[in-house]
Amino acid sequence: MAEFVPAETIEVVKKNCPEFYEAVANLQKEVFSGKKLDEKMQRLVLLAVVATLGDEKAVKRQTKKLMEMGATIEEIQDVMKVVYIGAGMPRFIKAVEAILEVAGDQC
Amino acid sequence: MAEFVPAETIEVVKKNCPEFYEAVANLQKEVFSGKKLDEKMQRLVLLAVVATLGDEKAVKRQTKKLMEMGATIEEIQDVMKVVYIGAGMPRFIKAVEAILEVAGDQC
Amino acid sequence: MAEFVPAETIEVVKKNCPEFYEAVANLQKEVFSGKKLDEKMQRLVLLAVVATLGDEKAVKRQTKKLMEMGATIEEIQDVMKVVYIGAGMPRFIKAVEAILEVAGDQC
Amino acid sequence: MAEFVPAETIEVVKKNCPEFYEAVANLQKEVFSGKKLDEKMQRLVLLAVVATLGDEKAVKRQTKKLMEMGATIEEIQDVMKVVYIGAGMPRFIKAVEAILEVAGDQC
Amino acid sequence: MAEFVPAETIEVVKKNCPEFYEAVANLQKEVFSGKKLDEKMQRLVLLAVVATLGDEKAVKRQTKKLMEMGATIEEIQDVMKVVYIGAGMPRFIKAVEAILEVAGDQC
Amino acid sequence: MAEFVPAETIEVVKKNCPEFYEAVANLQKEVFSGKKLDEKMQRLVLLAVVATLGDEKAVKRQTKKLMEMGATIEEIQDVMKVVYIGAGMPRFIKAVEAILEVAGDQC
Repeated sequence: MAEFVPAETIEVVKKNCPEFYEAVANLQKEVFSGKKLDEKMQRLVLLAVVATLGDEKAVKRQTKKLMEMGATIEEIQDVMKVVYIGAGMPRFIKAVEAILEVAGDQC
Repeated sequence: MAEFVPAETIEVVKKNCPEFYEAVANLQKEVFSGKKLDEKMQRLVLLAVVATLGDEKAVKRQTKKLMEMGATIEEIQDVMKVVYIGAGMPRFIKAVEAILEVAGDQC
Repeated sequence: MAEFVPAETIEVVKKNCPEFYEAVANLQKEVFSGKKLDEKMQRLVLLAVVATLGDEKAVKRQTKKLMEMGATIEEIQDVMKVVYIGAGMPRFIKAVEAILEVAGDQC
Repeated sequence: MAEFVPAETIEVVKKNCPEFYEAVANLQKEVFSGKKLDEKMQRLVLLAVVATLGDEKAVKRQTKKLMEMGATIEEIQDVMKVVYIGAGMPRFIKAVEAILEVAGDQC
Repeated sequence: MAEFVPAETIEVVKKNCPEFYEAVANLQKEVFSGKKLDEKMQRLVLLAVVATLGDEKAVKRQTKKLMEMGATIEEIQDVMKVVYIGAGMPRFIKAVEAILEVAGDQC
Repeated sequence: MAEFVPAETIEVVKKNCPEFYEAVANLQKEVFSGKKLDEKMQRLVLLAVVATLGDEKAVKRQTKKLMEMGATIEEIQDVMKVVYIGAGMPRFIKAVEAILEVAGDQC
């Protein structure tokens, strides 16, 4: 769950709802053990999902995680173009702005 | 534009708004000429976007297109798991039901 | 409320929750007494809102209502183009398909 | 997972992705063992969530489940009024229509 | 309308569109005079709706209002778990973060 | 594309994806050459779309653009009332707050 949420938030959920936290952590593990797509590819898909939802903070967190995993800015751009036609200009703009804050001028 | 829309609908848009149609077709061509991700990968991303929007018909059209392009049911499943945590159970269910109608019991 | 809902549904809401029904009907009257925009223009705006939500049935109802009020297919097309860039291809397609069912080949 | 999905769909997910299915089923069990709210109350909340998403089939499934658990039509109406102000008229209408199909004229 | 909006915003709407303001205030009164669910319960439902929309500010305002009305953090947690499966991880995270800002470490 | 995005963001997209940028700019030109509705009217529609998406920054950018084009606060209010019934109270509040920041007390 760590890459979705600031550390303090995780600690609160873990402390207050330990069984729920376990179930969520376990589910996340199952999600990202893809049969065919590797985790980087699945996280590029998740980036598109949170961009479609218009969630700037989640876009930043996923971008950070993706760059740590070795995703390139070209791969992220290829995802963003799909977001443009799939979810429209405003969702594209919001996501690109968030990515720029994380990836800087290399973007 | 053809794989997004039933043929008659395309014809109507093309006839009534030819310049708009051209601009959309041209944009779509640019979107799917990814620098790093191939078209199949970009369409798996689009599948996640339309599943997040809860658009059953678009899920069916993208699934059909993906299978024509050689995507496997395992790849589609790996995308759907991401939709579950990214967009929630109801969006996952709606998309899985739509995929089953297209992909049958091999799914 | 009548143009939003099939007649039987209205009757049920009216019978079961009469005060709520009154409040909603009264609000709707206030909404559509625009200071500057006339009702047709406000309903073109509403058409864009329900298209953005991906609500096919509401798109059909608003289109029917708009045509009764004398809106032309060109006005509806001008709204739909905005939906394309504002909400993306899938929302545009879903709305255009719904409008075609109501407006036929004159669209 | 059973009350979210038609039986055949469950069987397919269970057969093809058994670990994922287990993780989802386990999470759902944790969700509905509320500390303070009972399951009926939590499902009324879920009804509002799926109505906000505009998911007609999920509204029908949740309504059916709620009526089996002894929820009354008055409780469902109290939820729907909240959906009206929280998510707007079109989401309210779509949900009420779906509920009427399940609950009939007693609604 | 007061608990939805900062005081200055209300004053502006009230001054500029007095009849519309009246109609909205009246509707809100009808919504929260539930037949079976009390206002606290209806506001827990509204909390789920605004969390599903991904509206952080509205989540904070509803949480504040709920705590003034005597809702406990356990009740809010039971709602949030439903948001997780109903609307997905990112909507859950966004809402939990907003609630933490209002409810502090007692959460 | 300029009125959708801060200047630096445009420059980055233009530099990194010049063909995509061209295609988007061209599409936007086609969208806003309405047959019947003038650009101001189409942008009032776009304002409703971005308000429905809950995108505060886009609401501010569109409001600014609209006021430059001579739209009055009454026209914007007539659009916002439609957003209230079409997309619900929280989307209305979020948009009104954003408009107030741009239009000040004349709103």
